[in-house]
Amino acid sequence: MTSFEELWRGLLPVGRSADSGGYQRFSWTPSDASCREWFVSEARSGGLTVEADRNGNQWAWWGASGPDAVVTGSHLDSVPDGGAFDGPLGVVSSLAAVRLLKARGFVPRRPLAVVNFVEEEGARFGMPCLGSRLMSGAVSPGHARELRDPSGVTWAAAMDSAGLDASGIGADPSRLGMIGTFVELHVEQGRGLVESGSAVGVASAIWPHGRWRFEFAGEANHAGTTRLVDRRDPMLTFAATVLGAREQAALAGALATFGRVSVEPNGTNAIASFVRAWLDSRAPDASSLATVVEAVTSLAAERGDRDGVKVTVTAESTTPVVEFNASLRDELAALLGAAPILPTGAGHDAGVLSAHVPTAMLFVRNPTGVSHAPGEFATTDDCLAGVEALADVLQHLATR
Amino acid sequence: MTSFEELWRGLLPVGRSADSGGYQRFSWTPSDASCREWFVSEARSGGLTVEADRNGNQWAWWGASGPDAVVTGSHLDSVPDGGAFDGPLGVVSSLAAVRLLKARGFVPRRPLAVVNFVEEEGARFGMPCLGSRLMSGAVSPGHARELRDPSGVTWAAAMDSAGLDASGIGADPSRLGMIGTFVELHVEQGRGLVESGSAVGVASAIWPHGRWRFEFAGEANHAGTTRLVDRRDPMLTFAATVLGAREQAALAGALATFGRVSVEPNGTNAIASFVRAWLDSRAPDASSLATVVEAVTSLAAERGDRDGVKVTVTAESTTPVVEFNASLRDELAALLGAAPILPTGAGHDAGVLSAHVPTAMLFVRNPTGVSHAPGEFATTDDCLAGVEALADVLQHLATR
Repeated sequence: MTSFEELWRGLLPVGRSADSGGYQRFSWTPSDASCREWFVSEARSGGLTVEADRNGNQWAWWGASGPDAVVTGSHLDSVPDGGAFDGPLGVVSSLAAVRLLKARGFVPRRPLAVVNFVEEEGARFGMPCLGSRLMSGAVSPGHARELRDPSGVTWAAAMDSAGLDASGIGADPSRLGMIGTFVELHVEQGRGLVESGSAVGVASAIWPHGRWRFEFAGEANHAGTTRLVDRRDPMLTFAATVLGAREQAALAGALATFGRVSVEPNGTNAIASFVRAWLDSRAPDASSLATVVEAVTSLAAERGDRDGVKVTVTAESTTPVVEFNASLRDELAALLGAAPILPTGAGHDAGVLSAHVPTAMLFVRNPTGVSHAPGEFATTDDCLAGVEALADVLQHLATR
Repeated sequence: MTSFEELWRGLLPVGRSADSGGYQRFSWTPSDASCREWFVSEARSGGLTVEADRNGNQWAWWGASGPDAVVTGSHLDSVPDGGAFDGPLGVVSSLAAVRLLKARGFVPRRPLAVVNFVEEEGARFGMPCLGSRLMSGAVSPGHARELRDPSGVTWAAAMDSAGLDASGIGADPSRLGMIGTFVELHVEQGRGLVESGSAVGVASAIWPHGRWRFEFAGEANHAGTTRLVDRRDPMLTFAATVLGAREQAALAGALATFGRVSVEPNGTNAIASFVRAWLDSRAPDASSLATVVEAVTSLAAERGDRDGVKVTVTAESTTPVVEFNASLRDELAALLGAAPILPTGAGHDAGVLSAHVPTAMLFVRNPTGVSHAPGEFATTDDCLAGVEALADVLQHLATR
């Protein structure tokens, strides 16, 4: 069995649902603690030195830490009922690539590290890429400390209860300054590599994207006795907004999704008083994205006027387009034998870091394109090709 | 302070939310236990003898239990974030009416009892009027025992954990046979009495109504990377069904409401794999109700075909039209000084019992018509008028 397969098997059972086969690995929960312990243990057994930075991101250094480092890695947290590959494939491949480089007898000329970023999905606290955003100063520590999970637990309380110290979180320029080049390997979340017939590709760009919280405030009442004309039913406004969002996305060549909803009081025979729902939208360019979100906001407000429902829209996170470093991208694509170059709609820590340091991403083929779901998949052969490619890239970067 | 006001104030804090002012009194929870203890204590202090029947309904007898009894009462459980009046007003008014009759020196010629029926709202286990349905044999004990709350706890386990014995539940013909006449007082859940300018009215009928569980099965996927044409998004099908249900209800002069929804996996950046939602529908007659439900089912299935979403519809409970005993209704309306006679869209234990024994309902004016919400209200003057009316009715019935 290869190093990759051994590492992969060790992590596979952590946080897995016996029912769906999907994963619940939310930040600072017991399954996340198990993932972090696994990272420490496997990094150490691979001869690396492990530390956590002030924001809780884990770093495993090959030799001494230092400036101009070649850094690779990804994240271990998951979306609700997520797949095994989104995040973990990058971390496992990074640790496996280091073992492969050691087996090759390679000695890096630059510091080299594997990183595990915290809360990349934003599944528990609502803000994706929180670990890399904190490190780079893209979010203030005060704001981050007060982010709350659905039970009302703050980021600060959750981080403290996991044995870390949330009082010290925030921008970490000395840590960021150590990174000379960042490379993130990730399972592809579409079928671009299937169409081009390649196991591994290089990222060109990340679409601009964001999350908007829509709040529809109506009035609870008895479903069996309240005349239709007397109702202020926010479920109607929400439903019209869901259908309108799809239509606007189609018109703009963009994506728009309502996948998360909470209803109050959520009783079978009660008209809802309140519906809260989140719009995820992405587009090839900022102008298309703005057009979609403005149109959906307008149609929600107009329908709300008809329904007697007040609509409030709050941008929870927005991320501008990311164009990865073009010369690094072309250099790596050439190194990997004219690997295909392709964009993605998904956000990544690499997107956050690319504003500060030369950054690249490698994608591994996903035969179904399914992601953020238990069916997310890559073949072992393609994963091993990814490890080889990542090792080649790290060797190339750490040599010059 | 009147007996009614004393009783009312004693019950008011139980299960009340400090935030919304609404109530969470779900069967076999601690707040329900407090309501049941309150019932025992206040019935005893009013000189009544308390017992629970095999289904957990509480009975408070004035003197010995026996056949041809005049029985009055309602329920103490609530919908999620419900109001203070739906249910409790009937139980409190019944106990207050007995005290008033004793103060009048009245001695009943027939046995007289106050009853508190369990799980009238169906808020925890999904089937309304479960206590009266079990007693009358309208639901089988095996089915009831296996009903589950949202956490998966069965009715049997919950009832046992509350110190009762679920192995003995089921049809109770000897108990049912004791009831000579049943009268339930209830806060009105509309504005009929506001329009007629009366504090108290008498029920004519309950609209046929039911609950249907709609299940929309699609496919989870990444919201940021899955092309619109590749999606099987059940949120779209659900949204179209919500809007269609409203339209069909308006066409049929009926009511249709989706107030309860659950989404899987319910992540911001995941297309939903599954949406489960409950349709509550009511109509003046059975044919209109069937027309609405069939039309909504058809349009959901048609939209599901377009969305690649499988739609399954299950009737969780259906209740035919209830016409209350006409001679009893007219007799009581005359006794109360030509009280208005009006229908309701809401189900009640009185509706279940009316298939077996002469049954009547009294309504107390609701100035806003709001029900199943914290704003549910009746003035103290109207509540006292309700107690007087109920006492007059009980005295009338227990005299002949």
